[in-house]
Amino acid sequence: MSAQTSTGANGTNGSTASPKGQPDASKLKFDLTTALKDVPKPGSTELWEQNVATDHMVTCRWTVQNGWEDPVIKPFGDLTISPLASCLHYATQCFEGMKVYRGYDNRVRLFRPDRNAKRLVMSAQRVSLPGFDPEQLVELIKALVRVDAKKWLPEPGSFRYIRPALIGTGRQLGVQIPKKAILMITLVCWPDFSTESPPGVDPRSDLRLITSRNDTIRAWPGGFGYAKVGANYGPSFASHCEAQQAGYDQVLWLLGEEGQVTEAGATPLTDRVILDGVTRRSVLDLVESRLSEELEVREAKFTIKDIEAAWRNGLLQEAFVSGTAFFIKNVSTIRVGDFNIDLPQKQDDGSAFGPRIKSWLKDIMFGGEDHEWGVVVE
Amino acid sequence: MSAQTSTGANGTNGSTASPKGQPDASKLKFDLTTALKDVPKPGSTELWEQNVATDHMVTCRWTVQNGWEDPVIKPFGDLTISPLASCLHYATQCFEGMKVYRGYDNRVRLFRPDRNAKRLVMSAQRVSLPGFDPEQLVELIKALVRVDAKKWLPEPGSFRYIRPALIGTGRQLGVQIPKKAILMITLVCWPDFSTESPPGVDPRSDLRLITSRNDTIRAWPGGFGYAKVGANYGPSFASHCEAQQAGYDQVLWLLGEEGQVTEAGATPLTDRVILDGVTRRSVLDLVESRLSEELEVREAKFTIKDIEAAWRNGLLQEAFVSGTAFFIKNVSTIRVGDFNIDLPQKQDDGSAFGPRIKSWLKDIMFGGEDHEWGVVVE
Repeated sequence: MSAQTSTGANGTNGSTASPKGQPDASKLKFDLTTALKDVPKPGSTELWEQNVATDHMVTCRWTVQNGWEDPVIKPFGDLTISPLASCLHYATQCFEGMKVYRGYDNRVRLFRPDRNAKRLVMSAQRVSLPGFDPEQLVELIKALVRVDAKKWLPEPGSFRYIRPALIGTGRQLGVQIPKKAILMITLVCWPDFSTESPPGVDPRSDLRLITSRNDTIRAWPGGFGYAKVGANYGPSFASHCEAQQAGYDQVLWLLGEEGQVTEAGATPLTDRVILDGVTRRSVLDLVESRLSEELEVREAKFTIKDIEAAWRNGLLQEAFVSGTAFFIKNVSTIRVGDFNIDLPQKQDDGSAFGPRIKSWLKDIMFGGEDHEWGVVVE
Repeated sequence: MSAQTSTGANGTNGSTASPKGQPDASKLKFDLTTALKDVPKPGSTELWEQNVATDHMVTCRWTVQNGWEDPVIKPFGDLTISPLASCLHYATQCFEGMKVYRGYDNRVRLFRPDRNAKRLVMSAQRVSLPGFDPEQLVELIKALVRVDAKKWLPEPGSFRYIRPALIGTGRQLGVQIPKKAILMITLVCWPDFSTESPPGVDPRSDLRLITSRNDTIRAWPGGFGYAKVGANYGPSFASHCEAQQAGYDQVLWLLGEEGQVTEAGATPLTDRVILDGVTRRSVLDLVESRLSEELEVREAKFTIKDIEAAWRNGLLQEAFVSGTAFFIKNVSTIRVGDFNIDLPQKQDDGSAFGPRIKSWLKDIMFGGEDHEWGVVVE
């Protein structure tokens, strides 16, 4: 045991921080900037850096003594954080990834923001950060969008990425629940992973996967793979990197000796090793509601050997991955050990399911279809 | 799959960041403060907050373009970090815990600092942070100690806690290896967990453990339990907290259906689910070199059922935990489900091994014994 716990002088350690008040969107303060930044051009290489934020951000501070303070919209800029802050040492941090869309009808929409907001609360709990009313987060996101969307999202059919995040900022090296936290929301320029490629990379609409090595497991039952916490990401970068150096786009994370397929958008959630993805859930909902005559939805555990067997028997017809960042992307190859599972590439004649589902979702996001999932920001 | 990878515009993503240069201690710059802070009194309640740093800190910046910059000793103070920094979202962070001791001979010593320095390099690699020469880190630690020890560590027999940490500061939301990082070293006032108790808590020299729940696993083979990365800590706070609310000091982390005992200072390292602790290793070394006629060292996997069986058969004689923060602490109770394994409490007549080993280590740390593990800072 390499770190310590303690019961702190004020008696607040060792007890779950209970939220006081809320990040109350009705009390939002505005500190707007006049020093506006340049907006990157559509398709510009800057987008691939994924680090150009819009002019403003939302922050809301929390302390264990006073709960949530009033949120503020202010110029995007650096945070001042103690070198002893909990989030820098103990990964007391969680986040969400979502997008804001400028519809072809010129209206601005979020996609099922309630889902992301609720998930952030769940993730916060997993790393002992304070809870809050998810509806307030949705209202704060809308407020930020109202301030920055006109300038930063002018083109119908375009989108920006929204990154709500919650970090433990309390200055405390003890193994203790954070006594301070900051909820922040930033809006970031983002490339279209589903249709574009980075500079210097051949445009490809498909995705090539490589299975994880036996000695590298992303998440495990009893762990935190189901929560969107920082702790799931940094330790996976080396595997991602290795995959890319070998010419693949993504790691297909396997679990256990049997090689159970986990992160690929089709694993049941009961083991809590993968995220309850918003895009994933929406795909399943759409298949059930619109493709029930052609497809039966079954969420089941399967292994990489099951995939291989299906492929050898000619039963593997199509595979795609889903996620907010990637959206829907067709899988062309899965590298397993020293051989490739090459998936049949269907012509775009409407017979493939992935592209059909993707186009339904796009319609909802960009206002081609009026749907309750597309939440208009007036 | 809920986030994206990309090959960045400058071609540096997707390849392991290779260190250029070193955090070169011979080039250390001094920016000393005259606004000195008050030193907490020995035994004061402030110590239990574990958040009072000394007057100075070391920082050394790294960028993927230019490698390590010259390190600097400067006044302890807040960092400015982008809201989009990698360390805040993806837990690209690792740290070390060590102590500096004022000996009874008035000399200042570190305890096996080379071990911590090497481990930080190993941990950095696990979360795709840049490597460096561990000897340079040891030299930087010594330099900080030389500046602050006279004022902050005046009392023979006292110690402070040293926290080296490495964080990914690059402003980048892509799932990418950090392009910037900061190595920082802080010196923090720390209570003596092995002899004192927090304010309002009855003084107790023993430690009470409770086994982890089946649905909460700290680390997993193929994960990163062997590295000192933030990702191992935040997700464990809730279990620590629950244990403390139930009246226990620490969680005894079990793994798998058999309840393999992991974090308790006695698990073999081959599965890489626990840290190769410096205190742990030193205890084993001392037992081999000084107690070989009384004890045989065996590192083996064992389960909580093995412990229970040994206890029921009267074979369980003594248990202690080890770590830099706690040092050596005798275990009095292990809570397993709904019953207690109460360990025999030996009188302090020299028959118990824990106290003997602890006193040897103390002698080395505080200069009672001249030993290569006690590294004098001249």
